[in-house]
Amino acid sequence: MIVELVTIGNELLNGQTTDTNSAWMAQQLNLAGIQVSRINSISDSRESILGILEETEARADVVIMTGGLGPTSDDVTKPVLCEFFNTELVFNTEVLKHIESLLAKKSCKINEYNMKQAEVPESAVILHNEAGTAAGLWFEKNKKIFISLPGVPFEMKGLITKRVIPALNKIFSLPVIHARTIITQGIFEAQLAEQLKDFESELPENISLAYLPSPGIVRLRLVIRGDDLKKLVNDIDMQIQKLQHIIPEYIVGFDDDTFESIICEMLSDRSQTLSVAESCTGGTIASMLTAVHGSSKYFKGGIVAYSNEIKKDQLAIEPSLLDRYGAVSKQVVEDMAINTRLLFNTDFSVAVSGIAGPSGGTDEKPVGTTWISVSCKESTVSSQFRFGDNRDRNIKRASVTALNMLRKMIIEQDIIALKGLGL
Amino acid sequence: MIVELVTIGNELLNGQTTDTNSAWMAQQLNLAGIQVSRINSISDSRESILGILEETEARADVVIMTGGLGPTSDDVTKPVLCEFFNTELVFNTEVLKHIESLLAKKSCKINEYNMKQAEVPESAVILHNEAGTAAGLWFEKNKKIFISLPGVPFEMKGLITKRVIPALNKIFSLPVIHARTIITQGIFEAQLAEQLKDFESELPENISLAYLPSPGIVRLRLVIRGDDLKKLVNDIDMQIQKLQHIIPEYIVGFDDDTFESIICEMLSDRSQTLSVAESCTGGTIASMLTAVHGSSKYFKGGIVAYSNEIKKDQLAIEPSLLDRYGAVSKQVVEDMAINTRLLFNTDFSVAVSGIAGPSGGTDEKPVGTTWISVSCKESTVSSQFRFGDNRDRNIKRASVTALNMLRKMIIEQDIIALKGLGL
Repeated sequence: MIVELVTIGNELLNGQTTDTNSAWMAQQLNLAGIQVSRINSISDSRESILGILEETEARADVVIMTGGLGPTSDDVTKPVLCEFFNTELVFNTEVLKHIESLLAKKSCKINEYNMKQAEVPESAVILHNEAGTAAGLWFEKNKKIFISLPGVPFEMKGLITKRVIPALNKIFSLPVIHARTIITQGIFEAQLAEQLKDFESELPENISLAYLPSPGIVRLRLVIRGDDLKKLVNDIDMQIQKLQHIIPEYIVGFDDDTFESIICEMLSDRSQTLSVAESCTGGTIASMLTAVHGSSKYFKGGIVAYSNEIKKDQLAIEPSLLDRYGAVSKQVVEDMAINTRLLFNTDFSVAVSGIAGPSGGTDEKPVGTTWISVSCKESTVSSQFRFGDNRDRNIKRASVTALNMLRKMIIEQDIIALKGLGL
Repeated sequence: MIVELVTIGNELLNGQTTDTNSAWMAQQLNLAGIQVSRINSISDSRESILGILEETEARADVVIMTGGLGPTSDDVTKPVLCEFFNTELVFNTEVLKHIESLLAKKSCKINEYNMKQAEVPESAVILHNEAGTAAGLWFEKNKKIFISLPGVPFEMKGLITKRVIPALNKIFSLPVIHARTIITQGIFEAQLAEQLKDFESELPENISLAYLPSPGIVRLRLVIRGDDLKKLVNDIDMQIQKLQHIIPEYIVGFDDDTFESIICEMLSDRSQTLSVAESCTGGTIASMLTAVHGSSKYFKGGIVAYSNEIKKDQLAIEPSLLDRYGAVSKQVVEDMAINTRLLFNTDFSVAVSGIAGPSGGTDEKPVGTTWISVSCKESTVSSQFRFGDNRDRNIKRASVTALNMLRKMIIEQDIIALKGLGL
């Protein structure tokens, strides 16, 4: 089965909007055993929509489109679909009822733009859109399936999960694909590839390996194809065991794990708590941690000590330390970590102080210089890093690195505790 | 001139990675007067790369590709380019020197993967990649231009800005496109469209209007085409003046403005300072503000008071208030704002307390219920909001709404100050 995605919208082609829908759809389809073979982003003009419908009809079995179903006049998908499938717009009372009930919840009155959304192509099967006012549409032509969904991400998501994938599952006997992701931290892509050279050359033919780098993290993705899921799972697990022997020090998690989800699980399981003191990361670590549902179980809070004044007043950093060593120093970041832990009465704490850039660097401490400290009752560990010259990436790398240092400290404390029990 | 983008990588088609490169390239090209007509994402197999090269050769004048130039074995773009352009890989000493100097900075030794990156197709013009080890490649065939760039975003960005756009500018006489974005907050897309119905129908034919909704914000994008930039700028400005009469209360900024950049400019200009107290937004507001270079001029810091204990201990919230009204209440959020402002000794403060979800809601305070308070010496303003049931969007909407309340308070204070001066 060949599946293509089509995202429609001038905002994608002028760069005003990033196409996040495609990646999300591709991921969900992939998990359901459906491999997307191509993604096409086109303008919302009659010509380009008709063009891509003809093109994908020749190339694919299933075409999933998003965008252009909205209530405003730049949304032209519906009339063009009618033209291509030789049908016309008809008023659908079920859809109208649904729109009215959604608007009532937001205390909005229905207007003519909302009314237009109740018009749907006559030959389409309607895919009920719980989350929004634009219905999903399902067409069939010459044994090919065309699905048109709204471009608003959370509306599209509900339709893909609840309507599209279950329907495709009924029609096609899907091949079995199994994928695992291994998350590494602290090593560059080329250096990782060198360490995994033999591993890679020994991989069976039905397993592929991809390297996916992002600031501070390289993900390794192993994908296996076959027909017996149990065997596939087993085969991939064997490869992961191999990796755990080759690069144990760099593996930090698997699949959808993020540092924030790993920390959430580790500390919640241990009934331990965390606080943070952030200077250059400016709240990013706290924001990452609290993005995870359930973080309130272990995360008590933190201080964004962006100015030196706040470091002194709120974190009780000695003015003499700031004067002598500067805010980006081992001495200051250690006291930030220790004082925050005591102030917030938590088991662990993390502190970061650095020069995110693009300006503010010196010869001795160039832009990217960052001190990170993690602290618990038993020990405090601090390290200096030299990240790059890009503010955004420096903030991300510092945040990820700090959370990895915390992860290592939690594991270290477990080992010490076990040793203390004579285990 | 017809321009297409091609992003190469299995990680795009299985959804492991979101294609952010295309949007960025499209935006930069657009600003330079180059309209992208289509974006294609394909797998990194020989067949699909050869296929898209043939397809785009027939359709476009300029094709810009990213991805597959890395050092690992899943990067196949270079040999396939050689096949298509009938050339071969040759060792380039200039590129090698550059790779060595980059690795030296990171204290890494060159390995065979890095060495492979010094091999480039003989017939290609080399585009020097300051930021990374994979050179950009420029091919010409039958008067068509093909450009191949690394997929690592910051490397691609440097190449587009410093090499590709200047080179295209020399070759083509680019049409004049002028675009402005008007940022609105506090109104839904359909309601906005209703208010702008007449405005839209009266727009001249060479101006287009698009609605770009995101959590808490709807962007309006006006694009004009013509040949005289001065006239185009003038024509769009007239339309913006019209909008300022129709929806003055919803317009919060223009173009690349973000709430964080607007606040940074407003408070820096006034030499005033800000602190934040975040509960459900968990550091997101601080993180947004500090993402802007120069935020240290006005932003002193904040407290992420995620647990009630921290609200009491660090923000001096009366335990009786928490007991009687709960953490998500006018009483608590107001005290959070006032106490933070006093504690951090700032001119303004922002406080947020809400139920981000997905659980934790009650009948009286369902998930999405959020109290926001902004405070300055002269006044404290608090409002309750009912956002939705999605954690991530609730955090974003609360953050954006809080910053808009702050923006309004700063303007309000200006007006009061002017009145005080008898102006």
